[in-house]
Amino acid sequence: MYYIGIDLGGTNIAVGLVDEEGKIIHKDSVPTLNEREYPEIIKDMAMLSLKVIEDSGVSLKEVKSIGIGSPGTPNSEEGILVYANNLKFRNVPMRAEMQKYVDLPVYLDNDANVAALAESVAGACKGAKHSVTITLGTGVGTGVVIDGKVYSGFNNAAAEMGHMVIVVDGEQCTCGRKGCWEAYASATALIRQTKKAAVANPDSLINKLVDGDLSKINAKVPFDAARQGDRVGLQIVEEYMKYLAEGLANVINIFQPEIIAIGGGISKEGEYLLAPLRKLVSERIYTVEGVPQTRIVAAQLGNDAGIVGAAMLGKMF
Amino acid sequence: MYYIGIDLGGTNIAVGLVDEEGKIIHKDSVPTLNEREYPEIIKDMAMLSLKVIEDSGVSLKEVKSIGIGSPGTPNSEEGILVYANNLKFRNVPMRAEMQKYVDLPVYLDNDANVAALAESVAGACKGAKHSVTITLGTGVGTGVVIDGKVYSGFNNAAAEMGHMVIVVDGEQCTCGRKGCWEAYASATALIRQTKKAAVANPDSLINKLVDGDLSKINAKVPFDAARQGDRVGLQIVEEYMKYLAEGLANVINIFQPEIIAIGGGISKEGEYLLAPLRKLVSERIYTVEGVPQTRIVAAQLGNDAGIVGAAMLGKMF
Repeated sequence: MYYIGIDLGGTNIAVGLVDEEGKIIHKDSVPTLNEREYPEIIKDMAMLSLKVIEDSGVSLKEVKSIGIGSPGTPNSEEGILVYANNLKFRNVPMRAEMQKYVDLPVYLDNDANVAALAESVAGACKGAKHSVTITLGTGVGTGVVIDGKVYSGFNNAAAEMGHMVIVVDGEQCTCGRKGCWEAYASATALIRQTKKAAVANPDSLINKLVDGDLSKINAKVPFDAARQGDRVGLQIVEEYMKYLAEGLANVINIFQPEIIAIGGGISKEGEYLLAPLRKLVSERIYTVEGVPQTRIVAAQLGNDAGIVGAAMLGKMF
Repeated sequence: MYYIGIDLGGTNIAVGLVDEEGKIIHKDSVPTLNEREYPEIIKDMAMLSLKVIEDSGVSLKEVKSIGIGSPGTPNSEEGILVYANNLKFRNVPMRAEMQKYVDLPVYLDNDANVAALAESVAGACKGAKHSVTITLGTGVGTGVVIDGKVYSGFNNAAAEMGHMVIVVDGEQCTCGRKGCWEAYASATALIRQTKKAAVANPDSLINKLVDGDLSKINAKVPFDAARQGDRVGLQIVEEYMKYLAEGLANVINIFQPEIIAIGGGISKEGEYLLAPLRKLVSERIYTVEGVPQTRIVAAQLGNDAGIVGAAMLGKMF
C-alpha cells in the first residue's frame, strides 16, 4: 500500500506518494497563496494529491490514506486545524473538506510532530523505540515519538519543548513567556545574538562576511566566522551551543529517548556543531554509570520530512 | 487477583496486598536497617510479603505478582536496581533475589514513577489517559503515565523533571547541574529560602514561629507565616510559587497531560497553594483558544502511593 503525505506550508503545498518504508515514490508542489480562504487552499491540496497519485501510475485503491502536516495546533481526532497563525486558519475542518474530493481517511498533525515521525520511520531515528526530533529554524520545533507513535498529549498540543523556559525572566519569547528555549536556541535567536555582537564589534570577521550589511546575517555567518578563528564568532557559537545543550540535557532528563535527531538549517553545520554539543550535553545530563545514553545525531530527511511524516500518520493509526 | 506492592525506603520497608482497583487490603512494615547488605534487606522484603499475604487470608495462588518501588535507577527489564544512593545499592539483582523466596513475577520501578502509577490507577489521576504526578519533598520527584503505563524512556531513567534546568547558571543542584527545577521547587529549596529570609529579617513572624531556632524551620513555616499576613512569609511563598509555576508550565507544554497531581508534604497546603498556582500556570502555558487544558489537583494517596503503585506495576505488564 501507499500513503499520500501533504506538507502544508505558508509558501508551498508539497505532496508526495510514499511507500510502506517511508520512501517518496513521486512528489510535486504548488504555491499555497496563503491569502486565500481555506476551501480554495484545501481544494488545491486535494487536486494535487490526485495528480501525484495519477502521475505515479498507482491506482487510488492502492492508496491507504492522506496525511497532512501543517503549522499550528490540530485537533487530530476531529481532523480540524484549530489554529495556524501563518495560514490565518481557525477551526478549519481539514478532513471534511479534503473528503469532498478524495474518499480516503485523512489524518492531521503539526509539522514538528510529523517531522519526528518521518525521522522515526525512515530517517535518523529509524529503529529507535522512543525518539525526539528537534528542528532549529525560525523557532525550535520539537516532536516526540514514543513506541513508534507521535506523542501529542490529551489535547494534541504537547511536545512544545521550544516553549520550555530555561531562564526564568530571560529573553522575551514570541509565545508571551520569557526565557523559553526557543528564545536562545532558534536560528532567529542566533541571528539576533550575531547582529548584537556585530554592532558591538564592528571590526569582527562577521561584519566583513556580510560586507558591513548586518541585514545579511543568517545563522551560517557566525559559524563561518568561528570556523575561521574569529574571536567574536567563536564567542557567539560557544554561547549558542551552551543554551542549546542546556535544553537538550533537559529533553534527555525528561524523555531519555534512544536518539535525538537535530534538523533545520543550523544542523547543516554537522559535526562542527554536534561534536562539541554532545560533550556539553554529557556534562549536564542526570546519569548513572552503566545506564545507556541517548545518541545525538543529525536529522536525515531535510525538507522531505514533512511529506514522509504526514504520509506515515496513516501507518501509525 | 491480588498484587503485592513493596515500598522500599531508606527507613522502612512497607508491604501491601492490593486488589485490581488499587485498593490496599492489608499492609505491614518493618525497618529497612539500611546499613545491612542487600541479601538481608531483600529477604526481609520477601518474608514480609509472605506474611502480608497470609495475614490477609488470601492464598498465594490468588497473587499475580510482586512490584517494588525503590529510590534510585532501576533496570526494569532485568529486575536490577542499578543504583540507589540512600540504600548504597549498586547493580542489585532484586528480582532474582526475591524469587529465591517467592515464586512470582517481580517488577521494579523507581518511587516517583510508582507514585504516578498509583495516582493514575486509584488516585487523583484516575480515568486520565496521560497524567503526571509531582512530589514536592526533599527533591522534586516526577512520574509520567502515558496511555496507562509508566513512561521511563529507553533506559528507565526518564521523567526526571526535577532535573530540568529552569535557570541556566542558577542555584546549585545536588545532581551537579545548576538551576534545576528541584533547586527551586523542592521542600529543601523552600526551607533554604525561608532560613535565608529569617536571617535577613530577624523580626519576621517566621522567627517567632520557630522560637528563634532556625533549625526548626520546615516547609510549613513560611506558609503559616504567609497565612497570618507576615510580609516576609508572603514574599517567600510568592517567590516559591513562581518557580513552581514555571516548571509546571514547562511540564504542561511538554506533556499536556489531562491531569497533574501534586503530592508531597507541601501539597498539604491544599488550595492555599493550588489556587494561586493554577493562575500562575495558566498565564505561562502555550495555549490556543478552544484547546482543553491540564487540570492541576492535589495527589490523593499520600504515603500509600508507594505500595499501590508498586503493586500496580504487575497490572501494567
